[in-house]
Amino acid sequence: MSLPTVRTVADLRAQVAAWRGQGLRVALVPTMGALHDGHLTLVRRGRALADKVVASVFVNPTQFGPSEDFARYPRDEGGDAAKLASAGCDLLFAPDVSVMYPDGFATSIDVGPVTRRWEGAFRPGHFNGVATVVTKLLLQGLPDVALFGEKDYQQLQTIRRLVRDLDIPVSIEGVPTVREADGLALSSRNAYLTAEQRAVAASLNRVLRDVVERVRAEPGTVADAVAAGERALLAAGFDAVDYLAVVDVASLEPLERLDGPARVVCTARLGKTRLLDNFPV
Amino acid sequence: MSLPTVRTVADLRAQVAAWRGQGLRVALVPTMGALHDGHLTLVRRGRALADKVVASVFVNPTQFGPSEDFARYPRDEGGDAAKLASAGCDLLFAPDVSVMYPDGFATSIDVGPVTRRWEGAFRPGHFNGVATVVTKLLLQGLPDVALFGEKDYQQLQTIRRLVRDLDIPVSIEGVPTVREADGLALSSRNAYLTAEQRAVAASLNRVLRDVVERVRAEPGTVADAVAAGERALLAAGFDAVDYLAVVDVASLEPLERLDGPARVVCTARLGKTRLLDNFPV
Repeated sequence: MSLPTVRTVADLRAQVAAWRGQGLRVALVPTMGALHDGHLTLVRRGRALADKVVASVFVNPTQFGPSEDFARYPRDEGGDAAKLASAGCDLLFAPDVSVMYPDGFATSIDVGPVTRRWEGAFRPGHFNGVATVVTKLLLQGLPDVALFGEKDYQQLQTIRRLVRDLDIPVSIEGVPTVREADGLALSSRNAYLTAEQRAVAASLNRVLRDVVERVRAEPGTVADAVAAGERALLAAGFDAVDYLAVVDVASLEPLERLDGPARVVCTARLGKTRLLDNFPV
Repeated sequence: MSLPTVRTVADLRAQVAAWRGQGLRVALVPTMGALHDGHLTLVRRGRALADKVVASVFVNPTQFGPSEDFARYPRDEGGDAAKLASAGCDLLFAPDVSVMYPDGFATSIDVGPVTRRWEGAFRPGHFNGVATVVTKLLLQGLPDVALFGEKDYQQLQTIRRLVRDLDIPVSIEGVPTVREADGLALSSRNAYLTAEQRAVAASLNRVLRDVVERVRAEPGTVADAVAAGERALLAAGFDAVDYLAVVDVASLEPLERLDGPARVVCTARLGKTRLLDNFPV
């Protein structure tokens, strides 16, 4: 199967406008490539919500810090295109960096408090990069709906805030995390793990499920449950826990006791690899 | 004449979508009200470029500093609506602050270097406020074209950069400054001037025209021409010159000698009132 591919904003807009002229609804799935079944689930969900699905593949340099893995981030456009086609994607938008950030580009979007903690604290500038590139992709394609995984939960809540605040005319759809048989959340960065690290990685989702059960059973013991979870991750073989917290579902502010819709969020490290996961409480 | 008025994003979008469904082109003229013939010239130019013209009136709190004139900025919606109708405007969008900035609003857009000097240096945060509200207005209305006066030249160049950088699907049209018989640029803030200050104000455009003539005649003498201009403004009765500079037309960086398209930009003060003007060189 071969997937139609466009590389310029004009070509993307022409195809979307042609579809729209036929009265069709369009979904966009923004990705950084290195696609796995989590991404393909977004595409399949897009097909359920719209008539045509566009996927973008763009490894966005502005959301990587200077010491992060931009250069070694896995890239395989041919493989990605084949996977997208098999999942029912209609069009691949794969712009060059020079298309997204031509000479003189200078604008940055800050989504405020929801971006400050957790990933935002460990990756300064990350969410400004995400917000800016997502705004561009949404305004380049003008889809009816755009789909993002719950795996990057703070990113999803940042994008919801961004779209609401700037009145971007699109509906944002969050899609539940897809997991391996042992519960490990699918992530392009899992490819960095050694066999030994991969065995340890499976404990992340189990520990978070334990934290959820504990705070559900005893809503006043969030601090104890979090401390126990951190100990369990280190005991299981993680090298560090960047954060583990029970947070408000929208603001991402940490909760001391469970008194409304909450989410447990965590990033733990295996060597240089940061593994993220989260669950609804 | 009575002008149809909407106050919510949903009502604005419904009217614009109805027009678009009829194959009509739509122009947007964003204003802060207190309309004068400069604004009405934007409306008339909008009519020449599109089938329907929407004007927005919104005194945007986020582009005013804490010690600035937000509270006393002139407001007269009835008078504004009558003027807009007489100029051929089709729809007034007059949202409340709570429509533009509902609880939880948190996003801010920074357009980078073009915003740092001149007005940006004297009004910290001003252009972030402008960029954010203009992005919202453009995405709320999704016009084909939006019109802005050259009078606020740095604002116009900031919006051009913003629209290009974020791929906002709109064409930006700059419209030459409208002037009184003695050359004073029309501005809502001229209403703050006493009769005596108003007489002094007319010298601003004359001094800037002199600077233009001088640097055109001797392209290497920018610094001398600027210094002479500043002295002339103070001699004419201005209380202070915030800046007077010959700058690159797009980047707003100051030029030491004239070697390409340039603009002379200036803000001078009469009491608390800041008067802006600029000319092409």
